[in-house]
Amino acid sequence: MKCGKVYIVGAGPGDPELITLKAMKKLKQADVVVYDRLISFELLTYCRAGCEKIFVGKESGYHPIEQERIIEILIRKSKSGLAVVRLKGGNPFVFGRGSEEAEALKKAGIEFEIIPGITSGLSAPIYAGIPITHRGLITQCVLITAHESPGKPETQVEWAKLAKLKNANLIIYMGASRIDKICNELIKHGMDPAMPAAVIENGTLPEQRTITARLDEISGEFKKYNFHSPVIIMISPTVSMRKEISPLGKDSSAGGGINGPAMLLPENLDELFKIVQMQ
Amino acid sequence: MKCGKVYIVGAGPGDPELITLKAMKKLKQADVVVYDRLISFELLTYCRAGCEKIFVGKESGYHPIEQERIIEILIRKSKSGLAVVRLKGGNPFVFGRGSEEAEALKKAGIEFEIIPGITSGLSAPIYAGIPITHRGLITQCVLITAHESPGKPETQVEWAKLAKLKNANLIIYMGASRIDKICNELIKHGMDPAMPAAVIENGTLPEQRTITARLDEISGEFKKYNFHSPVIIMISPTVSMRKEISPLGKDSSAGGGINGPAMLLPENLDELFKIVQMQ
Repeated sequence: MKCGKVYIVGAGPGDPELITLKAMKKLKQADVVVYDRLISFELLTYCRAGCEKIFVGKESGYHPIEQERIIEILIRKSKSGLAVVRLKGGNPFVFGRGSEEAEALKKAGIEFEIIPGITSGLSAPIYAGIPITHRGLITQCVLITAHESPGKPETQVEWAKLAKLKNANLIIYMGASRIDKICNELIKHGMDPAMPAAVIENGTLPEQRTITARLDEISGEFKKYNFHSPVIIMISPTVSMRKEISPLGKDSSAGGGINGPAMLLPENLDELFKIVQMQ
Repeated sequence: MKCGKVYIVGAGPGDPELITLKAMKKLKQADVVVYDRLISFELLTYCRAGCEKIFVGKESGYHPIEQERIIEILIRKSKSGLAVVRLKGGNPFVFGRGSEEAEALKKAGIEFEIIPGITSGLSAPIYAGIPITHRGLITQCVLITAHESPGKPETQVEWAKLAKLKNANLIIYMGASRIDKICNELIKHGMDPAMPAAVIENGTLPEQRTITARLDEISGEFKKYNFHSPVIIMISPTVSMRKEISPLGKDSSAGGGINGPAMLLPENLDELFKIVQMQ
């Protein structure tokens, strides 16, 4: 039997319309889709009839399916001649363990292809009306994961060094449970306590919520509004530009506080259906 | 007359199939498209008949149309009631001056919406078979622009501090003309001269080429192969994983040297046409 192939595909950050044409094409052609918790489940409705859908979602602190088992599924299904889409949230190669899965497939002799997606850290702020970079202000954009290998003795994130960068922003993935510690570390090592910060929950989705506050107050605000993981934490002078670039007619709340998405919500998906269901 | 609207749209990194469904939809509905040099011109073939296409491409060191003039066009066209797509390469908010344009539109009272795209720095390495992050190895991913405002007295990039980060990668945009200086600065401030580095030209396109070498040798290699701007420079321990994650059957050249894309090339675009032309 001809061996199949695995496509490691980025689904994008949440808004299902932010999937790429290339990713959608593979999804529609798949025999098997092995998917995570952090994808838009609506995307699965575009799979062809008979496509097998396998949920391997991992909750923070609760891993119902181990990484080894996921890799075993990918290998077994592709070896039986099937086209397997491994659908992961965001960009599978940006803190998504995509390279681990690619490495394992390579070792097992399975053909594979990787399709990047839009990562949440570079899209949720946009939907919140916050520039990622701004000429003359940000020349260094630092993406950080606060969720590290459980086996590691201590954090590999160098908060002391990051606190001293100027002209930089910090965009932190999976930091909800450590937000106190992160802000304290940065201030302790010299970052201005008045540095603007934001926390974004449900990035790019209609339910998106954003809090903005000073670095020394963001953690308290975060708890007040009972945000749920996963969130994006952004620490950047550009957070204060929120009023300037938020689209007209939307509450921009540049002075702090909480509000819904500053961006227009995703439009109804009829058009998306028309685009992708004709094939 | 009803005022129109401007959509600041990311076209993605090069491969036309890496545009999002949301971006393609806006492109197909546009009355006017104002586009840059760094987009896939093939995307313009999807515009509806009668759509006005205005090229405002800026070459490095040669700016045929000033930023102020671009903004003036966006304002004038939208004020005459038209749906205007401002199509920019990559993600317009990641070193793309998208926020400047949004700011100006806001000031002029023009309604606008921003649609993120895939940025080249987080996709070209994937097409070259290089992981962006890898668990236990990279917890900090630094995107840097080497092309700064001409008016600035000195660089805002803090090479001395970046050189001292561990567990980090550096992904440098628009660094072709400064590659010597960048590598020298990093080594001078303590980065290991043997750190793996890569330069990627024409990222995600069929013409993509990649050089890999040690940090202290990459600049010489770069000149030998006559790479053209724009390129992505990646300095990261994950460059040495290129062999491990390059898809089967492709030359991965992990030991250094030059080669074409390790990823499969974009497939023929018939399918893309089918997906997007039905609407």
